[in-house]
Amino acid sequence: MQEQKLQINTERLKETIERFADFGRTENNGVTRLSLSKEDIAARDYLVACCKELGMSIKVDDVANLYATMAGSEDQPPLVMGSHLDTVKKGGRFDGVLGVIAALEVARTLHDHHIQPKIPFTLVDFTNEEGARFDPAMMCSGIISGKFEKAQMLQSMDSQGTTFGEALAASGYAGDAANRLQEATAYLEMHIEQGPVLESEALSIGIVDGVDGMVNYEIEVTGSSDHAGTTPMPMRRDALLAATDAIVLIRKALNERDPALVYTMGRMLVSPNIHTVIPNRVTFTLEARHKDMDVVGQVVKAIQELPETLGGCIIKTRKLWGRKTVAFDQTLCSRLEKSVQELGYSYKRMYSGAGHDAQYIADGVPTAMIFVPSVAGKSHCEEELTSYEDCAKGVNAALDTVLSLLNPA
Amino acid sequence: MQEQKLQINTERLKETIERFADFGRTENNGVTRLSLSKEDIAARDYLVACCKELGMSIKVDDVANLYATMAGSEDQPPLVMGSHLDTVKKGGRFDGVLGVIAALEVARTLHDHHIQPKIPFTLVDFTNEEGARFDPAMMCSGIISGKFEKAQMLQSMDSQGTTFGEALAASGYAGDAANRLQEATAYLEMHIEQGPVLESEALSIGIVDGVDGMVNYEIEVTGSSDHAGTTPMPMRRDALLAATDAIVLIRKALNERDPALVYTMGRMLVSPNIHTVIPNRVTFTLEARHKDMDVVGQVVKAIQELPETLGGCIIKTRKLWGRKTVAFDQTLCSRLEKSVQELGYSYKRMYSGAGHDAQYIADGVPTAMIFVPSVAGKSHCEEELTSYEDCAKGVNAALDTVLSLLNPA
Repeated sequence: MQEQKLQINTERLKETIERFADFGRTENNGVTRLSLSKEDIAARDYLVACCKELGMSIKVDDVANLYATMAGSEDQPPLVMGSHLDTVKKGGRFDGVLGVIAALEVARTLHDHHIQPKIPFTLVDFTNEEGARFDPAMMCSGIISGKFEKAQMLQSMDSQGTTFGEALAASGYAGDAANRLQEATAYLEMHIEQGPVLESEALSIGIVDGVDGMVNYEIEVTGSSDHAGTTPMPMRRDALLAATDAIVLIRKALNERDPALVYTMGRMLVSPNIHTVIPNRVTFTLEARHKDMDVVGQVVKAIQELPETLGGCIIKTRKLWGRKTVAFDQTLCSRLEKSVQELGYSYKRMYSGAGHDAQYIADGVPTAMIFVPSVAGKSHCEEELTSYEDCAKGVNAALDTVLSLLNPA
Repeated sequence: MQEQKLQINTERLKETIERFADFGRTENNGVTRLSLSKEDIAARDYLVACCKELGMSIKVDDVANLYATMAGSEDQPPLVMGSHLDTVKKGGRFDGVLGVIAALEVARTLHDHHIQPKIPFTLVDFTNEEGARFDPAMMCSGIISGKFEKAQMLQSMDSQGTTFGEALAASGYAGDAANRLQEATAYLEMHIEQGPVLESEALSIGIVDGVDGMVNYEIEVTGSSDHAGTTPMPMRRDALLAATDAIVLIRKALNERDPALVYTMGRMLVSPNIHTVIPNRVTFTLEARHKDMDVVGQVVKAIQELPETLGGCIIKTRKLWGRKTVAFDQTLCSRLEKSVQELGYSYKRMYSGAGHDAQYIADGVPTAMIFVPSVAGKSHCEEELTSYEDCAKGVNAALDTVLSLLNPA
């Protein structure tokens, strides 16, 4: 007969989710809690108070990443769990904060049951994950893992003209670089899926094997802006028609690739954008993501193989940026899978199409993520929703894995 | 042997074109002379002075349309010739003003040769043809021919918050409604082609048989703005992909129609227009022009036959506006053709794809237009160019027809 597993307090988890949503709650039950805003700072203050109640010690590093640690009986690198408290403008109640609350609920459950771990347990809140106030996203997990230059990041400016450096100095959360996360036993991040896959397959848990590689190009089509009424069709160099031709070619090429490939032309600008003038310039972005970098490479090839001209217009392509696939720690993923199986939850192993702090932390620390379902795949909007039941399942799975890691046999 | 025809003064014509271009000349040798701006008023003042030198009498109507009349020996409705002095922002030295200068040069030539016409000869400058300052285009020829409500037009506001009514009152050119153009023997307007046809066929003159009918629709595509990284392709409702599908269908349908049909998707807006978000809404305009309203009707049919949904997105179409084909006076066109043939100029009879004051005046007055070639088809830009030689040919053709009409056998 299966051993009864330790469970979290589901009612407390639900109340904590709603309590944190009060920090920036919008009229439509979403949340606006931009990084280092007064709402974010209030949420941090509340988090610190909650952690202190459990006897956890608080540290902040030089870019306001916040660490709350429950001491271990042995002097070992900590097991770290967390995510981020900041949201986009008119975001939801779950993205980011759920991973921090999950870590808090794990700590509370350990505290409830007077479990003192061998290995220290550290909750982390990474600063400015969304990049919604200060570009880029995943800024401060990126800084401490060497992806971004701190000096350059301090200059990143919000829409009000405030730099990240200024907001940091004013926040009361600028600490010491010596406190940065360094060696760790593992990093575990729970997050909403931000996609429709788990819900559509009626699954409660996603065990995330890694983050898709991606590439983002800009395609520029240049024609001639002549009079829409007086220029015969054969004499036109219509940049919008040529852009349409390019999109048709791209779709044909990419639709022949692996079905898991996703690609998006999300931004398109037409110039001069007047209904009586033939467009002389169209630019659009093409981003594509897949776990296999060979497939991402096929996308790049398809872009590079676009004709130099279409319909008399010049086609130019420019790589804006890209990132390689990040593979998470397979031992940790398998341990999570074991917890989920033993708890009897439905699940799948999957890759994340979205970016997360975990992908930067994974560089130096064995890392894995747990996804819980997003209703209708929605995120970064006020409608963002994950059922409390699914949230609780995710935290129970994390708790089981954390317990096994904190007190190794 | 052919009779020697009276000719205009080409050097004077050239100097007058350049003199008028000084009113609002831009750094790049274009012209910005928005309607009733100080540049436009200065150009009007200069025009009035030139006409007074010839003994012409000046009248203005209640919407600042300006009339300068050389008296006839008989009390008959005048022969009217002109166009407009206003330009778009960073427009050229020819669009509009050339037709006014052509009328001035005809009057000057009559004056040079002491020709007193039987029928009065009236030069006209129509107010706000471009619609670049006050929407809509062809406003004041439209008001006096009953196309627009004057009271509504007076409320039309420029980008600085000034209404047409206020600019009119401040201009010094608000006159009497009794002076509006009413009965006339004929209206003749010379204009640059604003298209590439005459130049590409190496012709000097276009005799314009009418103005193409047109229709302008907005097509709205509504999908769902999901995460570009986490939403599998089959679960997307990508409004940009659906808009591309709609454009492909439209192009296929319209490319099977009469080759003289022109159509343009000039304006496209993508929402939310973020590279990492699947577009949930795309709107684009589709305007099409042809001289045969049956062909315009085929365009409407093609739009109406678009599927109600494409790629899971909803397609809605909405007619923004349209205009019927305007046919000019065939007797007058043939008279112009005779002048052009006798002068030995190369020419073709053609329809105008662009709109002109003449199309409104044609409602009540026998009307025709003369086109002269636009280099590279360019207009409404600083590069706008017509050779002085072609300008002179156009005015010589007009003069010959005017002489025949002013002194009927």
